[in-house]
Amino acid sequence: MHDNNSPTQMPAHIKVTEVVTRDGFQNEDRVVSTKAKIQVIEGLVQAGITSIEVTSFVHPRVVPQLADADELVTRLPHHLGVVYSALVPNIKGAQRALATGITELHLVLSASESHNLANLNRCVRESLAQLARVCTFVQRENPETVLVGTIATAFHCPFEGRTLVERVIWITEKLVDMGIHTVVLADTDGAAAPLQIEQTLSLVRERFPEIILGLHLHNTRGMGLANAFAGLRSGVTLFESSLGGIGGCPFAPNATGNISTEDLVHMLHEMGFHTGIDLDQLIAEGRKLPAIVGHHLASQVAKVGKSSDLHPFTGTKIASSRASQKEVSGHIH
Amino acid sequence: MHDNNSPTQMPAHIKVTEVVTRDGFQNEDRVVSTKAKIQVIEGLVQAGITSIEVTSFVHPRVVPQLADADELVTRLPHHLGVVYSALVPNIKGAQRALATGITELHLVLSASESHNLANLNRCVRESLAQLARVCTFVQRENPETVLVGTIATAFHCPFEGRTLVERVIWITEKLVDMGIHTVVLADTDGAAAPLQIEQTLSLVRERFPEIILGLHLHNTRGMGLANAFAGLRSGVTLFESSLGGIGGCPFAPNATGNISTEDLVHMLHEMGFHTGIDLDQLIAEGRKLPAIVGHHLASQVAKVGKSSDLHPFTGTKIASSRASQKEVSGHIH
Repeated sequence: MHDNNSPTQMPAHIKVTEVVTRDGFQNEDRVVSTKAKIQVIEGLVQAGITSIEVTSFVHPRVVPQLADADELVTRLPHHLGVVYSALVPNIKGAQRALATGITELHLVLSASESHNLANLNRCVRESLAQLARVCTFVQRENPETVLVGTIATAFHCPFEGRTLVERVIWITEKLVDMGIHTVVLADTDGAAAPLQIEQTLSLVRERFPEIILGLHLHNTRGMGLANAFAGLRSGVTLFESSLGGIGGCPFAPNATGNISTEDLVHMLHEMGFHTGIDLDQLIAEGRKLPAIVGHHLASQVAKVGKSSDLHPFTGTKIASSRASQKEVSGHIH
Repeated sequence: MHDNNSPTQMPAHIKVTEVVTRDGFQNEDRVVSTKAKIQVIEGLVQAGITSIEVTSFVHPRVVPQLADADELVTRLPHHLGVVYSALVPNIKGAQRALATGITELHLVLSASESHNLANLNRCVRESLAQLARVCTFVQRENPETVLVGTIATAFHCPFEGRTLVERVIWITEKLVDMGIHTVVLADTDGAAAPLQIEQTLSLVRERFPEIILGLHLHNTRGMGLANAFAGLRSGVTLFESSLGGIGGCPFAPNATGNISTEDLVHMLHEMGFHTGIDLDQLIAEGRKLPAIVGHHLASQVAKVGKSSDLHPFTGTKIASSRASQKEVSGHIH
């Protein structure tokens, strides 16, 4: 348990949904093989991750990196307590997804019109109508399926700037009306600041006390974990993150993308939250990624290790005699 | 002003002390010329920074990068409202510093014995005795001099692990007894998590309500801005940071060092805090640094720009016909 001084609304257990093989690999130039994806997912499961968004049932022409969605999900080994999920953009995607036996589907739209238009090629009302049709279809075909709604640009849009919280509440209401009980707010371009996270969550929570609220955060401007902390302070129990922090933002070519799962879990554990994840194993799995994607990763903890990885004390750093050491002391802080 | 929903104890104005020419350049392999340092400092002043820790009056053998301390401070142009400060390890350093006319001196020791021994080659009690002698000397020679005490490893020690808050309170008490009114707590190895920052600050603040508390943060494990946000929530009004995020940690060779001033100021401004800093100018100054230090920087905002730098909307991303676009929509979030 975390310290008694921590805010009372902070939850003890945090669910981390890993998105590396979907959001991460989707943004890589290199197409990762189905076999390598399965190995990554198996590694994640071994590290104790129990929720993995493994792919997207989007048209292969749009995202060739995920063209193997059907084969990937079909070939994934089942593990007790592990839930695989996939993004579905439309009824055709949902049909393909259900055919694989996957039990959780993620539906996405943007809060801002221009981002929705740029990415989904329709206005927000059209997207809402389409997602309602998908929900009806899924609830009829397989009522056990868990549906999660993700609102992209929930805090900021790269074209329009800051998103009005009224917009997020309006869309959340529509998603709830479709029978969705979990809503993930995404800081798509990594532009939200922690106070805005707190304020948005507070207002959405007040209006919809019964739903599960999640955060999908990017570290584009260095605020990823600050926003995660703001989310924790607001009672968020669900975070989406990517192993190694991979998954760039198409609107910020040089930027880091998703918050790194290693860094998120490290911060959570350092503050006493439970995740069920073996961080050492997770770091080990993350260190296999550069060979798969062909570049270095953004995870800081993967580079330097955990706070609790202590250094051996080897005495003073200055090699000269004690007398001159005294004279010249005062090196760093 | 920040939003009314923000915690009431959060201050409206934040003081940012820039440490790039001291803490940053001290950790660079390349020795930066006095002329280049003056240009960097002048650029910072033009960007509205009013508090700059410019150098350290340490023995040149220990830190050759700062061997020009006397010359640098003497040659710095004076600007109304701009305060230059320097680190002094001992009476000899204080003598040199006062001879340059500098008006603010920073005194450093570590909360943990092994880190103090590694860096200052003495135990903490010896350091406290030495700093008391420095204070007495400075208060006699020039009573107008502002004295700031910095406690390194205030949250975590790379050799010993987590620092007991009792230790920080004990040292703070000794510093206050010396006549010091500003105490900066440093997360030297970038290992603190935000809840610990809040808890430590709360206990120190409770014990010493009259002093100014500052934070010197590192981003070693990605928690730099999360810890800054925790500090803001605890009423901290003073942060030390480094342009471009330069200044590595000697105990974590691959790690990023100090939190980046650009990223810190960006987050502060996004949340409505005042700093008096022109962020665009600051980013422009930071972008000159790679030519000086010879490597890329860790600042994210320097790479991708501010949240408010919007992208032109150029319509949908998919180039094919509207019909097929509809069919294949559902790309990213």
